[in-house]
Amino acid sequence: MSVTPDWIALDWGTSNLRAWAMKDGRAVANVSSSDGMGALARDGFEPALAALVDVWDVPAQTPVIACGMVGSRQGWVEAPYNVVPCAPLVQSTVRAPSDRFNVQVIAGLRQSTPSDVMRGEETQIAGFLALNPDWDGVICLPGTHTKWVQISAGEVISFQTYMSGELFALLSGQSVLRHSVNAEHWDQATFDFTIEDALSKPEKLAARLFAIRADDLLEGATAEVGRARLSGLLIGAELAAARPYWLGTNIAIIGADGTATPYARALQTQGASATIADAERMTLAGLTTAYRRWKDTL
Amino acid sequence: MSVTPDWIALDWGTSNLRAWAMKDGRAVANVSSSDGMGALARDGFEPALAALVDVWDVPAQTPVIACGMVGSRQGWVEAPYNVVPCAPLVQSTVRAPSDRFNVQVIAGLRQSTPSDVMRGEETQIAGFLALNPDWDGVICLPGTHTKWVQISAGEVISFQTYMSGELFALLSGQSVLRHSVNAEHWDQATFDFTIEDALSKPEKLAARLFAIRADDLLEGATAEVGRARLSGLLIGAELAAARPYWLGTNIAIIGADGTATPYARALQTQGASATIADAERMTLAGLTTAYRRWKDTL
Repeated sequence: MSVTPDWIALDWGTSNLRAWAMKDGRAVANVSSSDGMGALARDGFEPALAALVDVWDVPAQTPVIACGMVGSRQGWVEAPYNVVPCAPLVQSTVRAPSDRFNVQVIAGLRQSTPSDVMRGEETQIAGFLALNPDWDGVICLPGTHTKWVQISAGEVISFQTYMSGELFALLSGQSVLRHSVNAEHWDQATFDFTIEDALSKPEKLAARLFAIRADDLLEGATAEVGRARLSGLLIGAELAAARPYWLGTNIAIIGADGTATPYARALQTQGASATIADAERMTLAGLTTAYRRWKDTL
Repeated sequence: MSVTPDWIALDWGTSNLRAWAMKDGRAVANVSSSDGMGALARDGFEPALAALVDVWDVPAQTPVIACGMVGSRQGWVEAPYNVVPCAPLVQSTVRAPSDRFNVQVIAGLRQSTPSDVMRGEETQIAGFLALNPDWDGVICLPGTHTKWVQISAGEVISFQTYMSGELFALLSGQSVLRHSVNAEHWDQATFDFTIEDALSKPEKLAARLFAIRADDLLEGATAEVGRARLSGLLIGAELAAARPYWLGTNIAIIGADGTATPYARALQTQGASATIADAERMTLAGLTTAYRRWKDTL
């Protein structure tokens, strides 16, 4: 029997598209594809969404609440940024042009000094705050572009983006280090030591990268050790720069297992303990909050 | 009239191959190709060399003195590393298997603590020392993998490799920053400021990269500014880590114009003045030194 959703929750990033069929307040099915925003022209969004959700029985004008890069200038419709400090879903959504669906796109957040932007994370933050009302502290959202976000009284006060995930992908996939870090797992003791070293001597970062290759060539260091060092150097450099964010406060990490755990471990080596919240669950909770708020405006 | 070289000087790196026809102690012609070591199997080296130099009249068993990655494990013949501290060309060359040429490959240098390696730069250093006898100080060789090399009494005492060049290529060509740094030139005041900032707050490096993109999106920062910031951040991080090398000593930079000038400028902002030596001239002088030394052993 086919699912007939009350509404559809949508996480539409640069490289991926994921949809949940929402019925009676919960997700009853989900589908995903690689039709990310980055690969679509403006008139490609509606067909990509239709192709994905047509496994369900979706009546015309079913509400679709979407977050992520789908709201960027190159997306389906540009949803302007809200300016921090503000609540993560402070402004109403923007409707994308579609006869088939009633698509509501969530606005991102921007910060003026220093300049910074997010699209998608604001929804996960809103979900986290919906599930943890009155929570104050700092939220870390690891990913291609990791965000550190300062939360107070339900508002995003400030945030900072780090390219550690993208740097790791480029260095481990395409640089001279690629031969020396090609492992499934990594050496935990090496990771811990490298975090400690990066935080105590952050000015040495640039001198540490090529040593991963040289230790492989000269000492036969394993790829497990190399991978731990590369990750430790990049996360360590990030923690050094983000220290004013995480020092002496509540910390929550919103991420999938593979990305959240190294951050939690790295913080732990510095005596800072963090709570891990599941990224998918936060996204769904945030989209649900946005859906309810949109319905209230009808 | 075709050139008949006494010997051939060869710089054979990962991506390029360059040969000079040497006659009566000087280069009378040169040719180059993209047949770098990285693209060749072991039996591909002799044909690639023959194809390149066959514009000249090259008698069988003409001496060929080669430096660079041609001497690596994946090269034509593995030329073992000499261990520092040592003179840059301390050991005799290694002959590559060829009936057509008498190919002598120069050994690289290695360092144990911290692990590091070079292949090719030792020849430029030897050339510099041949032209500047009794010179003591630090030599910087900018490139994909920039080297900082401490020289005393004609020996390489220690050295350190930085991946700044490769990082710049990856970040400016393939990361989210690529749209924000795509310019021919850069803004000099921004470069100077970024160097200063990177050296005074090296722990902030990781927080500065994404701001290049955000300032483009939000403030309309030009690509000239973006490019200056990216280069300034990477060279600044390198100078912060290499400070024990360059502080309070003679500095020479061996490089082509485009790579050497930013380093000289960055050092200048820190009150350190550097002499720039032309990379090609140093390579030729070093290969000539190696050739004479090899002849003396016959």
